[in-house]
Order: sequence, then structure tokens, then C-alpha cells
Amino acid sequence: MKAEIIAIGSEMLTPYRQDSNSLRLTEKLNKIGVAVAFKTIVGDRKKDLVGAIKTALSRIDILVLMGGLGPTEDDLTREALAETLSLEMHRDEQQVAALHARAATWRVPMPENNLKQADLLEGATLLPNPLGSAPGQWLDTDYEGFRKLLMLVPGPPHECLSLFEQECLPRLKAVLPERHLARRTLKAAMIPESQADKLIAPIYSEYTDVETTILAHAGDIQITLECAKTKPAEAFERVNELAGRIEEALEDWLYSSQGESLEQIVLYYLELRQSTLAVAESCTGGLIAQRLTSVPGASRSFLGGAVVYADPLKTTFAGVPSELIAEQGAVSAEVARALAQGIRLRTGATIGLAVTGIAGPTGGSDEKPVGLVYFAVSEPQKTEVMDRTFRGDRQRIREWSAQQALDLVRRRLM
Amino acid sequence: MKAEIIAIGSEMLTPYRQDSNSLRLTEKLNKIGVAVAFKTIVGDRKKDLVGAIKTALSRIDILVLMGGLGPTEDDLTREALAETLSLEMHRDEQQVAALHARAATWRVPMPENNLKQADLLEGATLLPNPLGSAPGQWLDTDYEGFRKLLMLVPGPPHECLSLFEQECLPRLKAVLPERHLARRTLKAAMIPESQADKLIAPIYSEYTDVETTILAHAGDIQITLECAKTKPAEAFERVNELAGRIEEALEDWLYSSQGESLEQIVLYYLELRQSTLAVAESCTGGLIAQRLTSVPGASRSFLGGAVVYADPLKTTFAGVPSELIAEQGAVSAEVARALAQGIRLRTGATIGLAVTGIAGPTGGSDEKPVGLVYFAVSEPQKTEVMDRTFRGDRQRIREWSAQQALDLVRRRLM
Repeated sequence: MKAEIIAIGSEMLTPYRQDSNSLRLTEKLNKIGVAVAFKTIVGDRKKDLVGAIKTALSRIDILVLMGGLGPTEDDLTREALAETLSLEMHRDEQQVAALHARAATWRVPMPENNLKQADLLEGATLLPNPLGSAPGQWLDTDYEGFRKLLMLVPGPPHECLSLFEQECLPRLKAVLPERHLARRTLKAAMIPESQADKLIAPIYSEYTDVETTILAHAGDIQITLECAKTKPAEAFERVNELAGRIEEALEDWLYSSQGESLEQIVLYYLELRQSTLAVAESCTGGLIAQRLTSVPGASRSFLGGAVVYADPLKTTFAGVPSELIAEQGAVSAEVARALAQGIRLRTGATIGLAVTGIAGPTGGSDEKPVGLVYFAVSEPQKTEVMDRTFRGDRQRIREWSAQQALDLVRRRLM
Repeated sequence: MKAEIIAIGSEMLTPYRQDSNSLRLTEKLNKIGVAVAFKTIVGDRKKDLVGAIKTALSRIDILVLMGGLGPTEDDLTREALAETLSLEMHRDEQQVAALHARAATWRVPMPENNLKQADLLEGATLLPNPLGSAPGQWLDTDYEGFRKLLMLVPGPPHECLSLFEQECLPRLKAVLPERHLARRTLKAAMIPESQADKLIAPIYSEYTDVETTILAHAGDIQITLECAKTKPAEAFERVNELAGRIEEALEDWLYSSQGESLEQIVLYYLELRQSTLAVAESCTGGLIAQRLTSVPGASRSFLGGAVVYADPLKTTFAGVPSELIAEQGAVSAEVARALAQGIRLRTGATIGLAVTGIAGPTGGSDEKPVGLVYFAVSEPQKTEVMDRTFRGDRQRIREWSAQQALDLVRRRLM
């Protein structure tokens, strides 16, 4: 069975916004044996949308229409589909009540145009969307003599993915022939992509029945292994065998063998060692704390810390002597060390982590260029300091720095 | 004139790889007055590609075919286009010589299949590609009685963009009537999308020559206005007139009239008022600091602050009495107030901002549900506290909270 995903929204035809939901939907569809054969991006014009739907229905069996379900005048997906298939729409009274209830909890009057989100296509099933106001729709229908499965899902990423997983996938599975995909994701930190590939390419190329994909971003390497077989045990065996050999080859660069994020792994090890962590961030400006606190339950071992962006705060929150900053400069091994020690002592954490560097675009010098970053990890018995020089723009330098900092803590805990 | 971009390559139909060249091509096309009306992503199957080209030629005037020009068996763009338009291909001798010369400098023997890159469509102009082995092609032709401009450009990003800019744009400019695109982006914070649309739809729908696009994410509404005219002054006048009316309608929900981010605006106002800001973040865990420090030059008015994730840190870094936390709970108006006051006093900032809430998925109760968040903004003369209850998952609650917090500071500074 082949699918097409149509992403609807004029913003995705500008230079500024890109459809990215379709990557996750593709992942889910692949898992149940559905290949995505086309993706189309179309703007908020009914004529264009009707044309795109017709084209899609003439070439595939499963159509996901993503976006254009909101309350505004340029949300036209329902109308376009009704026109294409010559279907009536009716207003679903239960959904109207739900919209009124939703507006009431927000304590705002509900605009009349909101109600169009309760319009249901003839023959369609309404798919509840607890994360937003626009429900999805499922339509199992006939088009020019062929059976077609159509799904309308909302555009905002968290609504789209949640609704697709909760409501669309089970319905698709019930219709499709069964088939088993085994997948594992391994992750490694701070190893150059070319070096990683040199180590593992001779291994994975032996496994022609396993699809190996390598993705690299800001010091994070993600290796995904996939194998589809009629017997699930066979698929898993092949994936696990290859995973074992890759793990061995990547040694301690590898931090995750089941797809966990680096922050999840750091928190896992902290809890295992009954350790706690606090951070003092200068150039990363909260990025490390933000990554750690994005994990539910982070509070069990991450205490928090300080964003010591201005120099006086390095003194206020981590007790770094202002003379040391004046002598060595805020971006120095000595200040990194004092920050890590200070934040550990002030917070009572067992481990203190500090980052201070020059993220640019200005502030660099010949001696201390943009991209130079000092890291320190402090425990009662010892404090270690290292420096790295990263290339690229401000965002890239900040992302690499956060990754390096978390990896240092991981290595310390291992 | 409308364009479609077809990105060719099966890897872009997997969960791991996305077309991103088209964003830059769209930017270039927009600048010469060409709107991109459709984007299609298709795999390396000739039948699918022929179908996609036919669909495109039936709905647009300018077609950019991106990728599938290399030497391998699954590079089929030339063949598919020849089939669609019933054109012959011939091998370009000059290009054959160039391929041989290129292989010689690389000191590798040239595989026979490499030569298919020298195949030129009947009537097409070869577009040199000094960065790679596959040249592009330009074809000004007729399809079912209509003039169509077609471009074949290579897939690798640097080759694609360079060739498009050097070879395609000048040819397009020579053919197109000169048009100028005016664009402006307005932004509003914390207004529900449907309410924003209700306020502005009656206005923007009057301007049929301006394309209005509305995007909403986590309390941020982005309204983009675009208008193309022969005379640039006319295009700008229309966009600016509509922008002015929308600004008026959105009143103080509107925070940006030139596309700046909320963090940029907050930093701008801080600098204007010669104020400084420090933050105490609990549930947002560094997200606010991270957004502010992502802006170059943030250090001029953002001092930093504390991620007071664990309760004792609320005392250590912001001087919140531990008895207050025990009595009222860490998520309470009183603690938010004390955090904002405390972080202001400790850092010497003129404004202290605090956020404390329950991001979930656990930790909620009947009285204090997941999603309940308290905000406080403190200045020497007064400290204001408010609460909001957000729906959704942990990430969404954190994002809405950071947006609300920054918006409170903006409103205070306005």
C-alpha cells in the first residue's frame, strides 16, 4: 500500500517554514509496512488543494491531509475534500458542545467561525483531538472505483503526531495486512560523522537486509537500524546482532543503545549513582538546564543552577572571585573551574558543571577566538577542566557546547 | 507567474531526510516575483516522476526539477522529462570531454555510466556546474499550448543553489515581466488564533492583492503579508497599508511589526529603557534564559538568573524563605512573588521575572492541576503576579509558559 502526505499551508511555501510533521508520520507509516510515495505541499487556496487531492487519489491508496482544519477563513481542507468527493458536510452537535466547553474553560467568548471545526464530512468518523480545538476525520471511501483511506489531521506538530498515533494508526492497522518491522536506534556523542562511518561502514554493509541510516547534528550521531521480515523474531535477531557489533566498534563514544537522548542518559546515570547535578551556564545561557528539564522526572537528580551570563552573576551565584575574572577573563580555564566548584558548593549537588565561552558573533580576539569554550566538571575529590574550539555560528556553537558539557558528565558517571 | 519545485529522491520519502534546498530556491524565486504554489517530493521511480511532471505542467508555468541528475541507475530525471514531453536526447560531446577531464584530475577511471550526465534534452540549454559532475539544463518549451519554463538542477545543496543562482535566475529574469515582491511579518503574543483571525479577517479579506498567512505556535501568532506588483513602491504601499490596519486591530497583542522575535523585542525595550532583566525559572527550566541568550548582544540587558528547579535552590538563589515554600507550596502566587523579588535583589537587575508551575506529566492535584503556572514580574516599586492554566503535554506547557513570561515583561516595558 502506498501513501501520499499532503501538507496544507501557504506558510510552507515561503522560504521560512518547512513541513516537518511528515517525517514522523512517515516513520509511523513505514512501521506498519506503508511506503510514502509522494509528499505534496500546497497553499491555502481551495482550487489548488482540490487539484492536489485529485492527483493524490489517482496515484495512491492512503492519503493523509495535514493542516487547514482550524477556524480561520484560510482553513479549507474540509471544504476542499467535500468538493473533490462531492460529499455533504454536517455540523456535529457533540463537537459543537465540546468547542463551547473548551472556550468556557479558557474564559473567552467563542467566535462564531470556531464552529466550522465541528463540520464533519458525510461518511467520515470524527477523530478526537484533546490537545487542540480542531478534531481530525477518518474516511474510508471509494474514488473512481478504488478503495481509498483518507485522514484529516491537524497541522500543529504535537496535535498532528498525537492524533495520528492515537486515532489513525490503529484504524490503518485494522485494514492493512500484517507485517513486522524491527528497529533500533543507537546514539554516539562528540565523534565526527566521518570517523563514525569509517568505524561502522564495514560492519553494516555486511547486513544487506538491514537498512542503516546515520544522522548527525551538533555532536550527536544517530544510527538507526531497520529490518522487515514476515517473522518478527527474525527481524529482531538481525537488528540486534548488527546493533551489538556497532556498539562494540563505537566503544565509549556510544551512549545510547535504545534511542534515549543524551540528557536522558545523564539523568539515568545520576539516579543510578545517587548523584545530583547543578549547572553554571554562561555562553549556553540555559540550554543545558533546558535540555535536562525537558525530561519528565528530571527533578529526581537535577537540582537546577545558574545562568551566569553577566560577569557579576558568576560571583553572586557561584562565588567566583571578581579578581579572578578580571585577571584571567570570564572565558578561561580558571573561571570555568571556579564556576563548577562554586555551583556545586552553593547548591549542595554532588556534581557541578560549568560552561563559559564565546558564542559570537562578536567578542572574539586572536588569543580567544569566537567558538572557544571552557568546560569544567567538579566533584568533591577533583575538578576537571577542558576546552574546545567550535566552528560555525552562534546557534551551532551553543548547541555543540551543550552537547559537549552533557557528554563530559556522562563520561564522568560511566 | 507560479512555480512548482519537484524534489526527486527516495531518501526524502524516509523519516530521516528532508528537502531543504527548496527553501532557498523559494527565497530567490520570490525576490523576482515568482510565487511557489506547490512543492512535490517524489522518489526515484520513473513512472512516479513522469506523473508528477505532468501534474506540475498542468498547473504552473515554471517548473524546477531538483535532483536525479547523477550517474547512477536511479538518477532518472532526464529520462522522465524526455518521456513526458516526447523529446529526444543526445550526448553532448563537449560535456563528455569535460567529464573525462574531471575524472583525470581526480585520478580515477571513469565508469561508463558517468557519461549519461552528458545527455541533453532536445531544445535544452546545458547549464554548467563547476561544483559537481552533473550539469543542469534549461528548457523553454510548450506544453499543451502553453509556454513552460523548465529547469533541471542537481540535488546536492551547494551545487543546487549555486547553479540556480548563476544559471537559472538570470534566464528567468530575462523572460519574466519584472515584478517586485513586498513582504512584511507581524507578530502577536498570547491571543488565541481564532480571536486574532476574527479581529483581522474582515480587514485582510479586503486586500485581495495581498496574500495573508497566519501561523500560530505556543502563544505566538505570526501574520505574513505578501504582495507582488510591477512597481515596487505600489507593492510596498499595499503591504504597509494593510499592516497598519492589522496593527491597529490587534492593539497591544501585537508585539512586532517587522518580524522580530518576542525575545528580540523584550531585549530591545530593555535597552531602550536602560533596564536589566534577571530570571528565576522553575518549570521552564532554562527555556526563557535560553531564548533570550540566543539573541546576539543579549548581554547588554539580560544578566542571567537561576534555574531554581529543586526547592532548596529557590532559597539559595532567590532567598525565598523555606517556610513560605512549605506553607504555600512551591507552585503558588506567594512563591512566584518571592522568587521575582529575590532574583531581582540578588542580581541587581531592574526587573526580576519568575515562573513556577507544574509541567507534568505527574505532580498535579485537584487543587493544583498539571498546567497551572504562576508568573511574577518584580520592579522596585511593585511586583505583579498572575496565573494561567495551560493544556497539553510537558513540552507544550513549558513553551506556553516561556512565551507568557516574556510577554509579561514586554507589557511591563511598553
